[in-house]
Amino acid sequence: MIQKYPSALLESAVNEFAKLPGIGRKTALRLVLHSLKRSPEEVTNFGQTIINLRNNVKYCSVCHNICDDEICCICNDPGRDASTVCVVENIKEVMAIENTAQFKGLYHVLGGIISPMEGIGPADLEIESLVGRVKSGIVKEVILALSTTMEGDTTNFYIYRKLSGSDVRISVIARGVSIGDEIEYTDEITLGRSIVNRTAFNDSFRT
Amino acid sequence: MIQKYPSALLESAVNEFAKLPGIGRKTALRLVLHSLKRSPEEVTNFGQTIINLRNNVKYCSVCHNICDDEICCICNDPGRDASTVCVVENIKEVMAIENTAQFKGLYHVLGGIISPMEGIGPADLEIESLVGRVKSGIVKEVILALSTTMEGDTTNFYIYRKLSGSDVRISVIARGVSIGDEIEYTDEITLGRSIVNRTAFNDSFRT
Repeated sequence: MIQKYPSALLESAVNEFAKLPGIGRKTALRLVLHSLKRSPEEVTNFGQTIINLRNNVKYCSVCHNICDDEICCICNDPGRDASTVCVVENIKEVMAIENTAQFKGLYHVLGGIISPMEGIGPADLEIESLVGRVKSGIVKEVILALSTTMEGDTTNFYIYRKLSGSDVRISVIARGVSIGDEIEYTDEITLGRSIVNRTAFNDSFRT
Repeated sequence: MIQKYPSALLESAVNEFAKLPGIGRKTALRLVLHSLKRSPEEVTNFGQTIINLRNNVKYCSVCHNICDDEICCICNDPGRDASTVCVVENIKEVMAIENTAQFKGLYHVLGGIISPMEGIGPADLEIESLVGRVKSGIVKEVILALSTTMEGDTTNFYIYRKLSGSDVRISVIARGVSIGDEIEYTDEITLGRSIVNRTAFNDSFRT
Protein backbone atom coordinates (compact mmCIF):
# COMPACT_ATOMS: atom_id res chain seq x y z
CA MET A 1 0.00 0.00 0.00
CA ILE A 2 1.26 3.44 -0.91
CA GLN A 3 1.42 5.66 2.17
CA LYS A 4 0.40 9.25 1.71
CA TYR A 5 2.49 11.64 3.75
CA PRO A 6 1.01 14.96 4.83
CA SER A 7 4.32 16.75 4.23
CA ALA A 8 7.03 16.45 1.58
CA LEU A 9 9.72 17.14 4.21
CA LEU A 10 8.39 14.25 6.28
CA GLU A 11 8.29 11.94 3.30
CA SER A 12 11.87 12.66 2.26
CA ALA A 13 13.10 12.12 5.83
CA VAL A 14 11.27 8.77 5.95
CA ASN A 15 12.81 7.85 2.59
CA GLU A 16 16.29 8.62 3.90
CA PHE A 17 15.89 6.51 7.05
CA ALA A 18 14.35 3.68 5.02
CA LYS A 19 17.52 3.48 2.91
CA LEU A 20 19.45 2.19 5.94
CA PRO A 21 19.81 -1.60 6.18
CA GLY A 22 17.20 -3.36 8.31
CA ILE A 23 14.98 -0.29 8.55
CA GLY A 24 11.62 -0.49 6.79
CA ARG A 25 9.18 2.33 6.14
CA LYS A 26 7.26 1.84 9.41
CA THR A 27 10.41 1.97 11.52
CA ALA A 28 11.65 4.91 9.45
CA LEU A 29 8.45 6.83 10.21
CA ARG A 30 8.84 6.03 13.91
CA LEU A 31 12.43 7.33 13.87
CA VAL A 32 11.38 10.48 12.03
CA LEU A 33 8.55 11.17 14.49
CA HIS A 34 11.01 10.63 17.33
CA SER A 35 13.36 13.15 15.70
CA LEU A 36 10.53 15.68 15.69
CA LYS A 37 10.21 15.32 19.46
CA ARG A 38 13.90 16.07 19.99
CA SER A 39 15.30 19.59 20.11
CA PRO A 40 16.59 21.10 16.85
CA GLU A 41 20.10 21.17 18.41
CA GLU A 42 20.02 17.43 19.11
CA VAL A 43 18.85 16.62 15.60
CA THR A 44 21.42 18.94 14.02
CA ASN A 45 24.07 17.28 16.12
CA PHE A 46 22.89 13.85 14.97
CA GLY A 47 22.98 14.77 11.29
CA GLN A 48 26.27 16.66 11.46
CA THR A 49 28.02 13.85 13.35
CA ILE A 50 27.17 11.31 10.64
CA ILE A 51 28.16 13.72 7.85
CA ASN A 52 31.34 14.61 9.70
CA LEU A 53 32.29 10.93 10.09
CA ARG A 54 31.77 10.21 6.41
CA ASN A 55 33.74 13.24 5.24
CA ASN A 56 36.62 13.04 7.70
CA VAL A 57 37.07 9.33 8.28
CA LYS A 58 40.65 8.12 7.84
CA TYR A 59 41.98 4.64 7.30
CA CYS A 60 45.34 3.58 8.71
CA SER A 61 47.88 3.46 5.88
CA VAL A 62 49.41 0.30 7.35
CA CYS A 63 46.52 -1.92 8.47
CA HIS A 64 43.50 -0.10 6.91
CA ASN A 65 41.67 0.06 10.23
CA ILE A 66 39.56 3.18 10.82
CA CYS A 67 41.50 5.82 12.72
CA ASP A 68 41.77 9.54 13.37
CA ASP A 69 45.40 9.89 12.22
CA GLU A 70 47.55 8.71 9.35
CA ILE A 71 48.53 5.59 11.30
CA CYS A 72 46.10 3.97 13.74
CA CYS A 73 46.63 3.76 17.49
CA ILE A 74 47.25 0.01 17.30
CA CYS A 75 49.97 0.20 14.61
CA ASN A 76 51.45 3.20 16.46
CA ASP A 77 51.62 1.42 19.83
CA PRO A 78 55.28 0.46 20.52
CA GLY A 79 54.07 -2.09 23.10
CA ARG A 80 52.51 -4.26 20.41
CA ASP A 81 54.22 -7.11 18.61
CA ALA A 82 54.77 -6.03 15.00
CA SER A 83 55.91 -9.52 14.01
CA THR A 84 52.38 -10.98 14.28
CA VAL A 85 49.64 -9.79 11.95
CA CYS A 86 46.03 -10.88 12.33
CA VAL A 87 44.06 -10.73 9.05
CA VAL A 88 40.38 -9.80 9.51
CA GLU A 89 37.50 -8.95 7.23
CA ASN A 90 36.39 -5.68 8.76
CA ILE A 91 36.88 -3.24 11.64
CA LYS A 92 34.09 -4.99 13.57
CA GLU A 93 36.38 -8.02 13.92
CA VAL A 94 39.25 -5.78 15.08
CA MET A 95 36.97 -4.45 17.82
CA ALA A 96 35.80 -7.96 18.76
CA ILE A 97 39.36 -9.30 19.03
CA GLU A 98 40.56 -6.18 20.90
CA ASN A 99 37.78 -6.77 23.42
CA THR A 100 39.21 -10.20 24.25
CA ALA A 101 42.52 -8.55 25.31
CA GLN A 102 44.21 -11.78 24.14
CA PHE A 103 46.04 -10.43 21.10
CA LYS A 104 49.05 -8.12 21.27
CA GLY A 105 50.05 -8.12 17.62
CA LEU A 106 48.90 -5.90 14.76
CA TYR A 107 45.96 -6.26 12.37
CA HIS A 108 45.35 -6.19 8.66
CA VAL A 109 41.82 -5.24 7.61
CA LEU A 110 40.92 -6.66 4.18
CA GLY A 111 37.77 -4.59 3.80
CA GLY A 112 35.69 -7.64 2.85
CA ILE A 113 36.13 -11.22 1.65
CA ILE A 114 36.28 -12.73 -1.81
CA SER A 115 32.70 -13.25 -2.92
CA PRO A 116 31.99 -13.96 -6.59
CA MET A 117 28.25 -13.75 -5.82
CA GLU A 118 28.63 -10.12 -4.79
CA GLY A 119 31.26 -9.39 -7.41
CA ILE A 120 34.07 -8.91 -4.88
CA GLY A 121 37.38 -10.19 -6.19
CA PRO A 122 40.88 -10.21 -4.67
CA ALA A 123 41.68 -6.87 -6.35
CA ASP A 124 38.91 -5.17 -4.35
CA LEU A 125 40.52 -6.21 -1.07
CA GLU A 126 43.70 -5.11 0.70
CA ILE A 127 45.55 -8.30 -0.15
CA GLU A 128 48.41 -6.77 -2.15
CA SER A 129 49.28 -4.48 0.76
CA LEU A 130 49.32 -7.51 3.07
CA VAL A 131 51.81 -9.20 0.73
CA GLY A 132 53.83 -5.97 0.84
CA ARG A 133 53.85 -5.95 4.64
CA VAL A 134 55.01 -9.58 4.72
CA LYS A 135 57.75 -8.91 2.13
CA SER A 136 59.13 -6.08 4.29
CA GLY A 137 60.46 -8.88 6.56
CA ILE A 138 59.21 -7.71 9.95
CA VAL A 139 56.20 -10.06 9.96
CA LYS A 140 56.93 -13.58 11.26
CA GLU A 141 53.37 -14.89 11.57
CA VAL A 142 50.11 -14.18 9.77
CA ILE A 143 46.97 -15.30 11.62
CA LEU A 144 43.93 -15.72 9.39
CA ALA A 145 40.78 -14.80 11.35
CA LEU A 146 38.03 -14.85 8.73
CA SER A 147 34.55 -16.34 9.02
CA THR A 148 34.15 -20.09 8.46
CA THR A 149 32.12 -19.71 5.31
CA MET A 150 32.76 -20.64 1.71
CA GLU A 151 33.86 -17.05 1.04
CA GLY A 152 36.07 -16.99 4.13
CA ASP A 153 37.75 -20.27 3.19
CA THR A 154 38.28 -19.07 -0.38
CA THR A 155 39.90 -15.88 0.86
CA ASN A 156 42.04 -17.83 3.35
CA PHE A 157 43.27 -20.09 0.57
CA TYR A 158 43.96 -17.17 -1.79
CA ILE A 159 46.05 -15.41 0.86
CA TYR A 160 47.81 -18.67 1.73
CA ARG A 161 48.85 -19.12 -1.90
CA LYS A 162 49.94 -15.49 -2.24
CA LEU A 163 52.16 -15.77 0.85
CA SER A 164 53.39 -19.34 0.30
CA GLY A 165 56.75 -18.20 -1.13
CA SER A 166 57.51 -15.94 1.84
CA ASP A 167 59.30 -16.98 5.00
CA VAL A 168 56.28 -16.48 7.24
CA ARG A 169 54.24 -18.79 9.43
CA ILE A 170 50.58 -18.85 8.38
CA SER A 171 48.07 -19.93 11.02
CA VAL A 172 44.33 -19.90 11.33
CA ILE A 173 42.27 -19.26 14.48
CA ALA A 174 41.17 -22.40 16.33
CA ARG A 175 37.82 -23.90 15.40
CA GLY A 176 36.13 -26.02 18.04
CA VAL A 177 33.33 -26.36 20.56
CA SER A 178 32.45 -22.95 22.02
CA ILE A 179 33.04 -22.46 25.72
CA GLY A 180 29.77 -23.13 27.52
CA ASP A 181 28.42 -25.28 24.68
CA GLU A 182 27.23 -28.81 25.35
CA ILE A 183 28.91 -31.54 23.33
CA GLU A 184 25.54 -33.20 22.67
CA TYR A 185 24.24 -30.19 20.76
CA THR A 186 27.40 -29.25 18.88
CA ASP A 187 27.18 -29.71 15.11
CA GLU A 188 29.09 -32.65 13.64
CA ILE A 189 31.61 -30.67 11.60
CA THR A 190 32.65 -28.51 14.55
CA LEU A 191 32.85 -31.52 16.86
CA GLY A 192 34.81 -33.52 14.29
CA ARG A 193 37.31 -30.69 13.80
CA SER A 194 37.63 -30.20 17.54
CA ILE A 195 38.74 -33.83 17.91
CA VAL A 196 41.17 -33.72 14.98
CA ASN A 197 42.69 -30.43 16.20
CA ARG A 198 42.76 -31.37 19.90
CA THR A 199 45.30 -29.50 22.05
CA ALA A 200 47.52 -30.72 24.87
CA PHE A 201 45.59 -30.66 28.16
CA ASN A 202 48.06 -28.26 29.78
CA ASP A 203 47.74 -25.83 26.87
CA SER A 204 43.98 -25.60 27.34
CA PHE A 205 44.47 -23.66 30.61
CA ARG A 206 46.35 -20.80 28.98
CA THR A 207 44.10 -17.80 28.74
CA MET B 1 31.24 -4.69 28.22
CA ILE B 2 32.78 -1.37 27.23
CA GLN B 3 33.55 -1.32 23.54
CA LYS B 4 36.76 0.38 22.49
CA TYR B 5 36.41 2.27 19.24
CA PRO B 6 39.49 2.82 17.07
CA SER B 7 38.32 6.34 16.16
CA ALA B 8 36.62 9.12 18.10
CA LEU B 9 34.62 10.10 15.00
CA LEU B 10 33.34 6.54 14.73
CA GLU B 11 32.44 6.42 18.41
CA SER B 12 30.46 9.65 18.34
CA ALA B 13 28.56 8.50 15.23
CA VAL B 14 27.70 5.21 16.97
CA ASN B 15 26.58 7.18 20.04
CA GLU B 16 24.28 9.34 17.92
CA PHE B 17 22.63 6.37 16.19
CA ALA B 18 22.29 4.54 19.52
CA LYS B 19 20.21 7.45 20.87
CA LEU B 20 17.40 6.56 18.46
CA PRO B 21 14.62 4.39 19.90
CA GLY B 22 14.99 0.65 19.32
CA ILE B 23 18.58 0.95 18.13
CA GLY B 24 21.24 -0.57 20.36
CA ARG B 25 25.00 -0.15 20.10
CA LYS B 26 25.48 -3.18 17.82
CA THR B 27 22.86 -2.00 15.35
CA ALA B 28 24.26 1.53 15.60
CA LEU B 29 27.72 0.26 14.64
CA ARG B 30 26.22 -1.64 11.72
CA LEU B 31 24.44 1.51 10.50
CA VAL B 32 27.63 3.56 10.88
CA LEU B 33 29.71 1.03 8.94
CA HIS B 34 27.02 1.02 6.26
CA SER B 35 27.23 4.83 6.11
CA LEU B 36 30.98 4.52 5.49
CA LYS B 37 30.27 2.38 2.43
CA ARG B 38 27.94 5.01 0.95
CA SER B 39 29.19 7.98 -1.03
CA PRO B 40 29.83 11.25 0.91
CA GLU B 41 27.01 12.86 -1.11
CA GLU B 42 24.50 10.24 -0.02
CA VAL B 43 25.46 10.56 3.62
CA THR B 44 25.38 14.36 3.47
CA ASN B 45 21.95 14.13 1.90
CA PHE B 46 20.80 11.79 4.67
CA GLY B 47 22.00 14.08 7.46
CA GLN B 48 20.78 17.29 5.84
CA THR B 49 17.33 15.88 5.14
CA ILE B 50 16.79 15.00 8.80
CA ILE B 51 18.15 18.38 9.98
CA ASN B 52 16.04 20.16 7.37
CA LEU B 53 12.89 18.37 8.51
CA ARG B 54 13.46 19.26 12.16
CA ASN B 55 14.21 22.91 11.45
CA ASN B 56 11.51 23.55 8.87
CA VAL B 57 8.65 21.32 9.97
CA LYS B 58 5.31 23.11 10.27
CA TYR B 59 2.17 22.11 12.08
CA CYS B 60 -1.27 23.03 10.76
CA SER B 61 -2.65 25.87 12.87
CA VAL B 62 -6.11 24.28 12.74
CA CYS B 63 -5.64 20.53 13.28
CA HIS B 64 -1.92 20.37 14.33
CA ASN B 65 -1.12 17.79 11.68
CA ILE B 66 2.33 18.05 10.12
CA CYS B 67 2.27 20.07 6.91
CA ASP B 68 4.35 22.21 4.61
CA ASP B 69 2.14 25.31 4.82
CA GLU B 70 0.32 27.28 7.49
CA ILE B 71 -2.79 25.15 7.02
CA CYS B 72 -2.52 21.48 6.06
CA CYS B 73 -3.77 20.01 2.79
CA ILE B 74 -6.63 18.22 4.56
CA CYS B 75 -7.98 21.33 6.34
CA ASN B 76 -7.51 23.28 3.12
CA ASP B 77 -9.43 20.80 0.97
CA PRO B 78 -12.87 22.30 0.16
CA GLY B 79 -14.13 18.80 -0.70
CA ARG B 80 -13.88 17.65 2.91
CA ASP B 81 -16.65 17.86 5.47
CA ALA B 82 -15.63 20.48 8.04
CA SER B 83 -18.55 19.56 10.31
CA THR B 84 -16.96 16.24 11.33
CA VAL B 85 -13.70 16.23 13.30
CA CYS B 86 -11.82 13.02 14.10
CA VAL B 87 -9.65 13.30 17.22
CA VAL B 88 -6.42 11.26 17.04
CA GLU B 89 -3.31 10.90 19.12
CA ASN B 90 -0.67 11.49 16.50
CA ILE B 91 -0.01 12.00 12.81
CA LYS B 92 0.54 8.25 12.41
CA GLU B 93 -3.17 7.74 13.07
CA VAL B 94 -4.05 10.45 10.54
CA MET B 95 -2.05 8.56 7.95
CA ALA B 96 -3.65 5.23 8.93
CA ILE B 97 -7.19 6.63 8.68
CA GLU B 98 -6.41 8.46 5.43
CA ASN B 99 -5.23 5.16 3.98
CA THR B 100 -8.67 3.63 4.57
CA ALA B 101 -10.25 6.33 2.33
CA GLN B 102 -13.37 5.98 4.53
CA PHE B 103 -13.26 9.37 6.24
CA LYS B 104 -14.00 12.65 4.51
CA GLY B 105 -14.03 14.96 7.54
CA LEU B 106 -11.19 16.84 9.21
CA TYR B 107 -8.77 15.77 11.95
CA HIS B 108 -7.58 17.08 15.27
CA VAL B 109 -4.15 15.83 16.35
CA LEU B 110 -3.76 15.90 20.15
CA GLY B 111 -0.02 15.28 20.08
CA GLY B 112 -0.30 12.49 22.66
CA ILE B 113 -2.71 11.13 25.25
CA ILE B 114 -3.13 11.87 28.95
CA SER B 115 -0.60 9.69 30.78
CA PRO B 116 0.15 10.46 34.44
CA MET B 117 2.89 7.81 34.32
CA GLU B 118 4.77 9.78 31.69
CA GLY B 119 3.82 13.14 33.19
CA ILE B 120 1.58 14.13 30.27
CA GLY B 121 -1.45 16.12 31.44
CA PRO B 122 -4.32 17.70 29.49
CA ALA B 123 -2.42 21.00 29.30
CA ASP B 124 0.34 19.31 27.26
CA LEU B 125 -2.14 18.27 24.59
CA GLU B 126 -4.11 20.24 22.00
CA ILE B 127 -7.40 19.88 23.88
CA GLU B 128 -8.13 23.59 24.42
CA SER B 129 -7.82 24.23 20.69
CA LEU B 130 -10.27 21.37 20.06
CA VAL B 131 -12.75 23.03 22.43
CA GLY B 132 -12.16 26.27 20.53
CA ARG B 133 -12.90 24.58 17.19
CA VAL B 134 -16.12 23.11 18.58
CA LYS B 135 -17.20 26.47 20.05
CA SER B 136 -16.78 28.12 16.65
CA GLY B 137 -20.00 26.28 15.72
CA ILE B 138 -18.99 24.64 12.45
CA VAL B 139 -18.32 21.25 14.03
CA LYS B 140 -21.38 19.00 14.38
CA GLU B 141 -19.68 15.74 15.33
CA VAL B 142 -16.48 14.84 17.13
CA ILE B 143 -15.25 11.27 16.56
CA LEU B 144 -12.85 10.02 19.21
CA ALA B 145 -10.33 7.65 17.63
CA LEU B 146 -7.83 7.00 20.42
CA SER B 147 -6.30 3.67 21.45
CA THR B 148 -8.35 1.37 23.73
CA THR B 149 -5.97 1.70 26.66
CA MET B 150 -6.35 3.17 30.12
CA GLU B 151 -4.71 6.37 28.85
CA GLY B 152 -6.90 6.46 25.76
CA ASP B 153 -10.07 5.99 27.78
CA THR B 154 -8.99 8.69 30.26
CA THR B 155 -8.36 11.12 27.42
CA ASN B 156 -11.67 10.22 25.77
CA PHE B 157 -13.50 10.88 29.02
CA TYR B 158 -11.66 14.17 29.63
CA ILE B 159 -12.57 15.44 26.15
CA TYR B 160 -16.14 14.20 26.57
CA ARG B 161 -16.51 16.23 29.77
CA LYS B 162 -14.88 19.32 28.23
CA LEU B 163 -17.29 19.22 25.29
CA SER B 164 -20.41 18.12 27.18
CA GLY B 165 -21.84 21.66 27.32
CA SER B 166 -21.51 22.18 23.56
CA ASP B 167 -24.13 21.30 20.99
CA VAL B 168 -22.02 18.60 19.32
CA ARG B 169 -22.43 14.89 18.83
CA ILE B 170 -19.58 12.94 20.39
CA SER B 171 -18.96 9.45 19.02
CA VAL B 172 -16.23 6.89 19.37
CA ILE B 173 -14.91 4.53 16.69
CA ALA B 174 -16.51 1.06 16.70
CA ARG B 175 -14.86 -1.63 18.79
CA GLY B 176 -15.52 -5.21 17.75
CA VAL B 177 -14.17 -8.37 16.21
CA SER B 178 -11.58 -7.54 13.54
CA ILE B 179 -12.41 -8.50 9.99
CA GLY B 180 -10.78 -11.86 9.30
CA ASP B 181 -10.66 -12.77 13.00
CA GLU B 182 -12.22 -16.01 14.23
CA ILE B 183 -14.87 -15.65 16.95
CA GLU B 184 -13.36 -18.57 18.85
CA TYR B 185 -10.06 -16.76 19.39
CA THR B 186 -11.38 -13.25 20.05
CA ASP B 187 -10.80 -12.01 23.60
CA GLU B 188 -13.83 -11.86 25.89
CA ILE B 189 -13.99 -8.09 26.31
CA THR B 190 -13.92 -7.42 22.57
CA LEU B 191 -16.47 -10.15 21.91
CA GLY B 192 -18.73 -8.91 24.73
CA ARG B 193 -18.61 -5.36 23.41
CA SER B 194 -19.25 -6.51 19.86
CA ILE B 195 -22.48 -8.13 21.02
CA VAL B 196 -23.62 -5.17 23.11
CA ASN B 197 -22.84 -2.72 20.30
CA ARG B 198 -24.23 -4.89 17.49
CA THR B 199 -25.28 -3.06 14.32
CA ALA B 200 -28.27 -3.59 12.06
CA PHE B 201 -27.47 -6.30 9.49
CA ASN B 202 -28.08 -3.94 6.56
CA ASP B 203 -25.68 -1.37 8.03
CA SER B 204 -22.88 -3.91 8.15
CA PHE B 205 -22.66 -3.86 4.35
CA ARG B 206 -21.90 -0.17 4.15
CA THR B 207 -18.25 0.33 3.37
